[in-house]
Amino acid sequence: MPSSFYEKKLTNLLASAGITVDGPNPWDIRVLDPRFYKRVIMESHLGIGESYMDGWWECDALDEFFFRVLRAKLDKKVSQFTRALSNLAGILINLQHPSRAFHVGETHYNIGNDLYEAMLDRHMLYSCAYWKGAGNLDEAQENKMRLIFNKLGLEPGMKVLDIGCGWGGAARFAAEHYGVSVTGVTVSSEQVRKAEALQKGLPVDVRLMDYRDIRDRYDRIYSIGMFEHVGIKNYRRFFEITRKCLAGDGLFLLHTIGSRRSSTNTDKWTHKYIFPNSMLPSAKQITAASEGLHVLEDWHVFGNDYYRTLKAWHENFERHWPDLKHAYDERFYRMWRYYLLSAAGSFRARNVQLWQILFSNDGITGDFYVSRETGNG
Amino acid sequence: MPSSFYEKKLTNLLASAGITVDGPNPWDIRVLDPRFYKRVIMESHLGIGESYMDGWWECDALDEFFFRVLRAKLDKKVSQFTRALSNLAGILINLQHPSRAFHVGETHYNIGNDLYEAMLDRHMLYSCAYWKGAGNLDEAQENKMRLIFNKLGLEPGMKVLDIGCGWGGAARFAAEHYGVSVTGVTVSSEQVRKAEALQKGLPVDVRLMDYRDIRDRYDRIYSIGMFEHVGIKNYRRFFEITRKCLAGDGLFLLHTIGSRRSSTNTDKWTHKYIFPNSMLPSAKQITAASEGLHVLEDWHVFGNDYYRTLKAWHENFERHWPDLKHAYDERFYRMWRYYLLSAAGSFRARNVQLWQILFSNDGITGDFYVSRETGNG
Repeated sequence: MPSSFYEKKLTNLLASAGITVDGPNPWDIRVLDPRFYKRVIMESHLGIGESYMDGWWECDALDEFFFRVLRAKLDKKVSQFTRALSNLAGILINLQHPSRAFHVGETHYNIGNDLYEAMLDRHMLYSCAYWKGAGNLDEAQENKMRLIFNKLGLEPGMKVLDIGCGWGGAARFAAEHYGVSVTGVTVSSEQVRKAEALQKGLPVDVRLMDYRDIRDRYDRIYSIGMFEHVGIKNYRRFFEITRKCLAGDGLFLLHTIGSRRSSTNTDKWTHKYIFPNSMLPSAKQITAASEGLHVLEDWHVFGNDYYRTLKAWHENFERHWPDLKHAYDERFYRMWRYYLLSAAGSFRARNVQLWQILFSNDGITGDFYVSRETGNG
Repeated sequence: MPSSFYEKKLTNLLASAGITVDGPNPWDIRVLDPRFYKRVIMESHLGIGESYMDGWWECDALDEFFFRVLRAKLDKKVSQFTRALSNLAGILINLQHPSRAFHVGETHYNIGNDLYEAMLDRHMLYSCAYWKGAGNLDEAQENKMRLIFNKLGLEPGMKVLDIGCGWGGAARFAAEHYGVSVTGVTVSSEQVRKAEALQKGLPVDVRLMDYRDIRDRYDRIYSIGMFEHVGIKNYRRFFEITRKCLAGDGLFLLHTIGSRRSSTNTDKWTHKYIFPNSMLPSAKQITAASEGLHVLEDWHVFGNDYYRTLKAWHENFERHWPDLKHAYDERFYRMWRYYLLSAAGSFRARNVQLWQILFSNDGITGDFYVSRETGNG
């Protein structure tokens, strides 16, 4: 095909989403290298992400660009064939087999604590905040924690499990404000090291371990932003473990990104650069895998809050870039900006979802109205 | 097998759930005909229900009896084989084919308006009420309507569709208190007749029609307690219709009883006496059937409220029985009591669930926090 074929096809597709090449709006794009068109058509997500990293195109408001692309479902029109091929890989290979479990920890979460300290809130929560009634990221992340702990009905003395505890921020907050003791597990050695340094004598025990090795029983369990790394072949096993580790009248809150459609892998760009082997669950996959193991108590959806969270992270990242740039190169800078803003646009378009799902083992008996309040604690 | 075999087996099973034959507690049972034991073991749900209708056993607190039976999962231990056979029937035959759609309307809902008038609240809502902050059934049903209409964000002038409108109570409430116009559909001619008599000049149009024949588009859709009659083979078609009939930025609220496990039919007693061809959906079945057609916005669970609703209906039924008994026989009385109290126990045990699921077509963009308030309207 002549290069004019790809240029025409892609330009027309973008126009159908209200995006003009070299147009005047912040969501319009400027093409700096004409090889851009063919690369996007041929390589879909990977092509558009890598060509951005390579500086082949620019956009003043990347999140607005992706919002329009995804509301118009352009991504689906471009990438039918490549997706079919890569879905197959997810079915055939257990990408999240225990031997691979520590891989994501070593690649993404060990990048350097300096980057996350600059980007995240003061509790270093690397997951969607809850913005209702909040004025800034710190408040929105404390809101999120109170929302979760109120839903769980935490009470002093309870024994709590945090699956995928990150740097331990939520575990420390629960211990400090709700009087519980928390066991946190993570697969990142950097996170354990940092969590231990911040522990301040609280009853928080952060362990470097795979969730499949948890053996104790807990009054409450929560998992914030970790299920995205579990993988479809392990969903059933995950819920078998949360059921087994949860006290009979306990509650388990699963906070995860969700997908509108069932698929068995992530897009190639995200897999290659951001989250190797991650996979967004669909509602169907979660309900199928948890059936007979947990009873649904509540399902809260607030995807636009992740858009706002990612925008706040991006602002922090840009503001602190002068302090960070000695440790990272320009291509990393473009990659990270692309990651934050393409994700922001994707949440704003509701192409991906944010779910808080509350489960019990066999149903809470008696009157039970799940709190959505963010007060106290 | 000698009859002593069945007696021993069933007595032991009941004892494991804390139920004693001829014991002193209100949930204990008195066996008046010794054929009871074999009939329950051999015929499961059908046997226990019919033997109650025939006066072979008594219980002072039937709902408490069922609560204990179901928390101990006795029903599963008794009925593995019969369930396997009847599941097969649900897969092979479309029990809710359009030609059968009017069957449930003619059998259950045409029983006699006098019975429902005596049993239900003043709006004649034959579905779970919302008891948070309510002192009696009338208040709890108005609460439920406000809960739904606040979640839907009804505003004056909106065009609203009510799928399975019953006697039109919710449609009239929406028209009167939220200033909307409502089209209601039902498959019961008695309900249409009664709804027309109560219309009082409100912009409410109640039609005798199958939901599959709805053609117009609406700003909002709700369906309260009707999905239980749709049937697994029609779930996909149901959501295709709700998507097609919903405006692009609209909301659809599905209020339905839910099952903990995916199955393809109801128990035989309920099928024979109460709701022919009804079927309780599982979360997995709903998420699978709606995938790609709707985006989940909220999933609210309040099963214990149905326990309280059924108890209130039972109280009303018993209190009005002297006025009703001329039109019904003693066996009907026992059947109806058994229906209300076994269902109450089943909800209290969380064996069945009450779900309000809020859907949009493609995701509501911008900040969107679903109300759970019951004020205003």
